[in-house]
Amino acid sequence: MKAVVIPEVGGTWEVREVPTPAPGPGEVLIRVLASGVCWNDVQAARGVLPFPSTSPAIPGHEPVGEVVGLGSGVTSRSVGDLVGVTWIRGTCGECDYCALGAPLSARAAFLCAAPVSTGFTVQGGHAEYLAVRAEETVRIPDGVAPEQAAPVLCAGYAALSALRAARALPHERVAVLGVGALGHLALQFSRAAGHETVAITSSPDKHGIAAELGAASVVADGAGLLAAGGADVVLATGRSYAATADAMAGLRPGGRLVLAGIDTAEAFTLPPQLPFFGLGQSIVGATHDGTPILEDALALVASGAVRPVVEVFEADRIAEAVDRVAKGEVRFRAVVRY
Amino acid sequence: MKAVVIPEVGGTWEVREVPTPAPGPGEVLIRVLASGVCWNDVQAARGVLPFPSTSPAIPGHEPVGEVVGLGSGVTSRSVGDLVGVTWIRGTCGECDYCALGAPLSARAAFLCAAPVSTGFTVQGGHAEYLAVRAEETVRIPDGVAPEQAAPVLCAGYAALSALRAARALPHERVAVLGVGALGHLALQFSRAAGHETVAITSSPDKHGIAAELGAASVVADGAGLLAAGGADVVLATGRSYAATADAMAGLRPGGRLVLAGIDTAEAFTLPPQLPFFGLGQSIVGATHDGTPILEDALALVASGAVRPVVEVFEADRIAEAVDRVAKGEVRFRAVVRY
Amino acid sequence: MKAVVIPEVGGTWEVREVPTPAPGPGEVLIRVLASGVCWNDVQAARGVLPFPSTSPAIPGHEPVGEVVGLGSGVTSRSVGDLVGVTWIRGTCGECDYCALGAPLSARAAFLCAAPVSTGFTVQGGHAEYLAVRAEETVRIPDGVAPEQAAPVLCAGYAALSALRAARALPHERVAVLGVGALGHLALQFSRAAGHETVAITSSPDKHGIAAELGAASVVADGAGLLAAGGADVVLATGRSYAATADAMAGLRPGGRLVLAGIDTAEAFTLPPQLPFFGLGQSIVGATHDGTPILEDALALVASGAVRPVVEVFEADRIAEAVDRVAKGEVRFRAVVRY
Amino acid sequence: MKAVVIPEVGGTWEVREVPTPAPGPGEVLIRVLASGVCWNDVQAARGVLPFPSTSPAIPGHEPVGEVVGLGSGVTSRSVGDLVGVTWIRGTCGECDYCALGAPLSARAAFLCAAPVSTGFTVQGGHAEYLAVRAEETVRIPDGVAPEQAAPVLCAGYAALSALRAARALPHERVAVLGVGALGHLALQFSRAAGHETVAITSSPDKHGIAAELGAASVVADGAGLLAAGGADVVLATGRSYAATADAMAGLRPGGRLVLAGIDTAEAFTLPPQLPFFGLGQSIVGATHDGTPILEDALALVASGAVRPVVEVFEADRIAEAVDRVAKGEVRFRAVVRY
Repeated sequence: MKAVVIPEVGGTWEVREVPTPAPGPGEVLIRVLASGVCWNDVQAARGVLPFPSTSPAIPGHEPVGEVVGLGSGVTSRSVGDLVGVTWIRGTCGECDYCALGAPLSARAAFLCAAPVSTGFTVQGGHAEYLAVRAEETVRIPDGVAPEQAAPVLCAGYAALSALRAARALPHERVAVLGVGALGHLALQFSRAAGHETVAITSSPDKHGIAAELGAASVVADGAGLLAAGGADVVLATGRSYAATADAMAGLRPGGRLVLAGIDTAEAFTLPPQLPFFGLGQSIVGATHDGTPILEDALALVASGAVRPVVEVFEADRIAEAVDRVAKGEVRFRAVVRY
Repeated sequence: MKAVVIPEVGGTWEVREVPTPAPGPGEVLIRVLASGVCWNDVQAARGVLPFPSTSPAIPGHEPVGEVVGLGSGVTSRSVGDLVGVTWIRGTCGECDYCALGAPLSARAAFLCAAPVSTGFTVQGGHAEYLAVRAEETVRIPDGVAPEQAAPVLCAGYAALSALRAARALPHERVAVLGVGALGHLALQFSRAAGHETVAITSSPDKHGIAAELGAASVVADGAGLLAAGGADVVLATGRSYAATADAMAGLRPGGRLVLAGIDTAEAFTLPPQLPFFGLGQSIVGATHDGTPILEDALALVASGAVRPVVEVFEADRIAEAVDRVAKGEVRFRAVVRY
Repeated sequence: MKAVVIPEVGGTWEVREVPTPAPGPGEVLIRVLASGVCWNDVQAARGVLPFPSTSPAIPGHEPVGEVVGLGSGVTSRSVGDLVGVTWIRGTCGECDYCALGAPLSARAAFLCAAPVSTGFTVQGGHAEYLAVRAEETVRIPDGVAPEQAAPVLCAGYAALSALRAARALPHERVAVLGVGALGHLALQFSRAAGHETVAITSSPDKHGIAAELGAASVVADGAGLLAAGGADVVLATGRSYAATADAMAGLRPGGRLVLAGIDTAEAFTLPPQLPFFGLGQSIVGATHDGTPILEDALALVASGAVRPVVEVFEADRIAEAVDRVAKGEVRFRAVVRY
Repeated sequence: MKAVVIPEVGGTWEVREVPTPAPGPGEVLIRVLASGVCWNDVQAARGVLPFPSTSPAIPGHEPVGEVVGLGSGVTSRSVGDLVGVTWIRGTCGECDYCALGAPLSARAAFLCAAPVSTGFTVQGGHAEYLAVRAEETVRIPDGVAPEQAAPVLCAGYAALSALRAARALPHERVAVLGVGALGHLALQFSRAAGHETVAITSSPDKHGIAAELGAASVVADGAGLLAAGGADVVLATGRSYAATADAMAGLRPGGRLVLAGIDTAEAFTLPPQLPFFGLGQSIVGATHDGTPILEDALALVASGAVRPVVEVFEADRIAEAVDRVAKGEVRFRAVVRY
């Protein structure tokens, strides 16, 4: 089959011919139709995150495709089902991290001693075929195109998990920092949940799209948020921790800053001059937080309440797709067809 | 009357003769019997925190004394009452901070545009007499000596507020980082609340006292805490943010790090390699969180469940007391008699 | 002035000429423009609830009107302001109920030893003029007609308080039992908060209006709710406790039944055969829960998200209005113009 | 083997010779050493609850014993382990109750269409031997005698689950209604959790034992509780719903009444005159709420913090034991040795 391979750390992603996997016992064989490109893949390809340990290195953890084969013993999926696969599919169960009773979440990719991690420790989704255990797949609801579903498997899942981690009541005000791969989805999830939603972006050219996606107002930074009345929740979806710290200036008493990203390369610093202590505020870590949230995210896409904004590339343009992701130019998620 | 005066930034605290205040309408005149020395006073005297704006600069925000005079209209206090005064007694109500609906908390000392702050913006408690509005006092329960009550007005209040901010259920495990002015009280409050309590201290010579004060076990750092099974709550009471970040390694899934200190001079940095995101953890800011908590703290001292460990100095030894606080040598709170 | 008077227990409400009140110190004089008729007024007139203790008995606790006079010392309201008045305006502060620290809520009308209760212990709103303390009024937002605002002062306030008492997260499903004075507003508040909302009504003729008001689906009873997938929250707005108990059959695990009514004449019985215990469910009492909720309710009406459905009567038709309320025929709240 | 058999509805329990079970695949064979007698067994024997469906009817759901045999494939238990078995061991997974996602709890015994329920749908623990799946057993901690462990399997598990369901913070005050099979354990669990604990009992002869078991004070009823300052939580452990409703008079604002019993024969009625609504109170259903709670309960017994008070009977005195339970004379839990 054709698959995308990263030849070495820092190398250019390219399409190669590789052996087609066969479904083992309990596995399904998926004919991949669409597969998203995530910033974390780019970071791994650069070696900032751990480089994929498979040989060859086939990245991708947002694959969506059709079940075309069943291994022995599979009863929960049928040929013809449209399914997706998530990033973290298993942990070792024995390391210090697992001993803490850690749930199966995206962070396990970096903390578990031996995770099963799509596109990192096992073959990723940027390929024509993929074999995974049936219970590691999630059904894509009727009416959702593969290109729309793919970005939900990681970006949408992360965005809705972050909103849920805030435990925001409907009448609370939510600000979304960043209008990008995660942020453009977080805005929509927040609006769909009934919150008055504020977008924070330092890019004037993103004000229009932020409003279209559900922002009742758009501000440039924490001072702007404060002037606009503040927010009970700030979902920090971007990659700038400086902007994240700045946005805290607009947190209301009892407010929660949710760190939705999972960047392990930088440290987040809490500025000393903020009213964090006196206002009973908190900082909450979030990431993929369980399949029911992913299923809710897919259902919201199916209902039309949330619409991923994607740039679609054919497989032979993978290098261009990656280049645009690396430069932050994609509006807002790159999806590759296989 | 005699009062402690800080002559200038960086100057040595000294006892001087100053005019005795008279109680205005609604005020009580307090004959101060004991007054604690807080690290924040030392930081203000050095100019790291804002230097007291009164002239002369009379510091101190843990005064306890007897009501000896009543201004007009006072009905809620009587001559002879033993009372204490807290740090923050009022905010301006009009600045940006107040506009957020910020509650009356210790942090207002640094964020409100014009707070009424004992020992900072108005005369402090290191003096023979103090006049404050009757409702700004709290009654000291029967049987609590002034020297025992004084450290509760700031340190004890902060320690119990931090514990309450964690909203820990009784069967959750609580670790207290630091065995010092706040920490030795936090240990006792946690044990009194029924939590299995772990002390974290890098000082081997404090292991014995930590156990005496209620620690079921004592560990040296976050790795030690993790090896001992972790904790649902870490109360960071010390002044080292490096130690605080290190201690997070022992937080369980869903765990909460409570930042109990209010140091505005340093920034807290969240280490990128921690399982913060994947474990649904949060960081909570805390400080003096309302008079009912202060009253509970005093009641726990009255009951014998909590016993502040103090070094008592006569007023003429104030410079020595301050010097020991500055060097971190006091075990565990300095109290001055007037 | 003209005012509605209930001549005696069980008597017919009638318009009489009575002395016009004058605003005392701190009070405003209100020219009433609209005043709602509440089931509880009808119950009081019948003697099922305590009959108004004023002489003559002037009922009504949903008055909206224009400020036309100011007593001495009033600075927070101006002549020309459109304001409303709520039911409970004060408690005695000294009885057993008050000693428990009970907040100012509608239930105080029946439990406090000496409440200040509009239309019960002091003159009610069914009159041309009303004098109340300025801080006992709430401003009506621009653009909301008096006839639309009146039902929010009690019915809308109760409906939104009930929803808030459930602490429902946005993705939880809410069922509203009863499509009447409270229920038709609860449906709209729930939908406006983003919840998937189910109406429960045994009246087939109310299915259409329930859907118009925001119900995604309509079921007849608890069995119907269960068949439709259940609900995380049931807001019981009607007066039948039998129907309320029946509706519990559709509560999901962890579900909450909110008793929004405040009927003191009947007892609510929890049926023994329900899965209440095994499912971690709870029953929550709710009523007017603080002015911020009332202000939010008025703001939602001003925004157009919620629209009280009213029947408007001129004052001389008060008896007819009361008769229709008593028979349960009003769709859905009677408002009288003065 | 010898086993207790209930010959028919209303019949006298007697010891008979019956076939000894053999452990199937995945099962362990337990030599029962102690087995508690629960009020629900008595109710089932009378036909008030469903009569055991096995033939012969061997009751008992608090068995503790030693593993003496292993079926094929068992690796998690070894011969010689001291283990206990709980009431509900499985649900059908297909009925309406299961479709709601109901957790495995004691209530399932009455609501699931086909539960696996010790002493009801499968052989109970009042026998010399019992075969159950290995994962349906819980280990008894070292140092806990079988006679002490047995009452924890149902009564202690229920009492601690009720306390946990209240989600009481350590400084909240807890009242336990009833000093009996559940109540005498709930008192101890509450005290061990650090709560100031009040016992409510109408039996003057139980005041002494209530104080010994951890009650800081003892009152007779809800009025007494109110006079003593009220409680944030009332755990209703007895069988009288009249007393339960009465106790609500002493609930503080925000207070929670936890219904710990699981009596399906009577209905609980909420008295209309209570301040339930105005005080933001709630009623919470509770029952066995997951193995971790059971393990915590056993650990508290092992630590010495909680001590079940039992009357021990040899197997041939089973009828006498049942008779005393039926009459409410046991102080406080009957345990039978096999």
